[in-house]
Amino acid sequence: MAQSYVMIGGEGPLSYAKNSSYQGGVVDVAKPIIEEAIKQKLDINELCSNGLMNNFWIADFGCSTGHNSFLAMQMITRAIGENFQSIRSVSQIPDFYVFFNDQVTNDFNTLFRSLPPERHYRAIGLPGDYHRCLLPKASLHFAYSSWALHWLSQVPKAVEDPNSPAWNKGRVHYSGARQEVVDAYSSQYAKDMGAFLEARAQELVSGGLMALVFPGAIPTSVENPNTSYSDVPSETALIGSCLMDMAKKGRVSQAKIDSFNFPIYFTFPEELKAVIERTGSYNIERIETLDNPGKHTLTNANARASFYRAAFEGLLIDHFGCEIIDELFDRYAHKLEASPAVLHPDNDKSVMIFVLLKRI
Amino acid sequence: MAQSYVMIGGEGPLSYAKNSSYQGGVVDVAKPIIEEAIKQKLDINELCSNGLMNNFWIADFGCSTGHNSFLAMQMITRAIGENFQSIRSVSQIPDFYVFFNDQVTNDFNTLFRSLPPERHYRAIGLPGDYHRCLLPKASLHFAYSSWALHWLSQVPKAVEDPNSPAWNKGRVHYSGARQEVVDAYSSQYAKDMGAFLEARAQELVSGGLMALVFPGAIPTSVENPNTSYSDVPSETALIGSCLMDMAKKGRVSQAKIDSFNFPIYFTFPEELKAVIERTGSYNIERIETLDNPGKHTLTNANARASFYRAAFEGLLIDHFGCEIIDELFDRYAHKLEASPAVLHPDNDKSVMIFVLLKRI
Repeated sequence: MAQSYVMIGGEGPLSYAKNSSYQGGVVDVAKPIIEEAIKQKLDINELCSNGLMNNFWIADFGCSTGHNSFLAMQMITRAIGENFQSIRSVSQIPDFYVFFNDQVTNDFNTLFRSLPPERHYRAIGLPGDYHRCLLPKASLHFAYSSWALHWLSQVPKAVEDPNSPAWNKGRVHYSGARQEVVDAYSSQYAKDMGAFLEARAQELVSGGLMALVFPGAIPTSVENPNTSYSDVPSETALIGSCLMDMAKKGRVSQAKIDSFNFPIYFTFPEELKAVIERTGSYNIERIETLDNPGKHTLTNANARASFYRAAFEGLLIDHFGCEIIDELFDRYAHKLEASPAVLHPDNDKSVMIFVLLKRI
Repeated sequence: MAQSYVMIGGEGPLSYAKNSSYQGGVVDVAKPIIEEAIKQKLDINELCSNGLMNNFWIADFGCSTGHNSFLAMQMITRAIGENFQSIRSVSQIPDFYVFFNDQVTNDFNTLFRSLPPERHYRAIGLPGDYHRCLLPKASLHFAYSSWALHWLSQVPKAVEDPNSPAWNKGRVHYSGARQEVVDAYSSQYAKDMGAFLEARAQELVSGGLMALVFPGAIPTSVENPNTSYSDVPSETALIGSCLMDMAKKGRVSQAKIDSFNFPIYFTFPEELKAVIERTGSYNIERIETLDNPGKHTLTNANARASFYRAAFEGLLIDHFGCEIIDELFDRYAHKLEASPAVLHPDNDKSVMIFVLLKRI
């Protein structure tokens, strides 16, 4: 992944750490499901087939500065510990090692300095691209990733190629774009998600679990569930329209906008299932869409603008320079204020996809 | 360890990264010895006693921002790879995993961003106090530490206690101090080094090697090799004398100086041997003192002042505040300039201690 995809580090007012309560909602809603999954699907006796199990390895892929990750890791280690306790005994609870993964340019300093002092695991930093294998073969017992897998490793090349039928001129994302653009995004997603799943298949032990949560979409057409398109109001399209307004005022060049696209894709359950099944390495134990309670935290225009700024600023600065950022997000907040209905939680149609996989 | 012991991060002109060529000399001088040690003492067949070895774990304890560590890790992985190649075969060279350890407050961001792209290992960050166990039991094959183990986990308590006979009033280190002060430092060292060795004994596999390099001392008296004191010109004493000059001018309070001491100890081979033997976990394969070629890099007053500033600034700011730092190191540089003989490499009597241990 490019450096620019990294969230804003530190703990300042614009940092990802201070603007990720929306994603934090994921932990709340996924908590009972993951706890139940660990209880029902983690076969302790299978994992301990060689006798005692001294070390239990967990990894969080795309953890950013860790604020939401710490909650998840606490919940996961506690649930696994209880499982060991009930199936084996307290004395057989293994030592937990948590590998915090993100790109090498992630703010690991903030992550390490924020580690909860009362944690029941040893924390390890695992820098690197999670589309490749990062841990030893068959070493990992539980893989987790939250709010990361909707990021593509790159914008699909065709979308930025003026000679391609998929060239996405005048837009910054696939929302509302031609089918060629949507298809280019969809195949980049299949490639990236496939690489992620293949890499984890190498690392996971047989019987190991993987819980993934990330924003996704619901197909608009029931007749055609393969339409990779949804009625999720696209925040990225709104940012795009602010950029177009700025182009009209001469604040940013049209060519700059034409060569920019968000490297984000919102998959939907059927599409994801096909990608998983292609690997041949997992049983799909559970796949579903969840509502995100975190959206109730973004009911005013400025909060929402800060949230998307924390997520996208690096990417936008990298392409447009830092001069336009304040104006862009001011315009964005004004656009939201002008249509308050958009801000109402009932109108936030975003969904999260939750998947639980078991390594065969 | 306290936060203040961490070296200056980043890559600015005052950073540790830009001011650690002195320590870098350690890699140069230790290189042939470590290469030879790996060839002669790393018993590949013993390590592979359970069949094939897929993963080879190396850890660098106290790696700071990694600039000298990368050279060492490259050298170590290459030497081990050659060893595997000659004793088994190319196809049996395992995957190398290097765990970069330092305190949680270390600048891991700079470390990760500076990782050499052409490395033949996967890099992992291992934040935490190396006086405790950080890795799974019997998981580590090669432990390394350079220029870190002369740092104590804390200033010996008695040295800062006005009611103790070891109170070190009017000095900032044990150089030239009363025997009680020296003894307090020595027993703190034995405790810290003992804890480090015990933790590594847990982590190392049987037959695993540990190579340690750090600044030490040569006992002044041949008749009494237990004298923990040497003729190494003490840089810390020179900083102390600058602080005393500043106290006379009212720039810093005498009480502040009385309550400050450097948490550093320069052991000597006989003392170190005794600490190692007390653990009962290692064979001492090699122990010797080496000359440091890095000292040729510090032959002008400003270079030397920058070097010690990078190493000690955090610690000094924590106690004295940041206002005095510029003046302190200006004075330090002037004192050095006034006695140019001190700067001549031939007058740098510092030694490094090199130890090679094998886990029984």
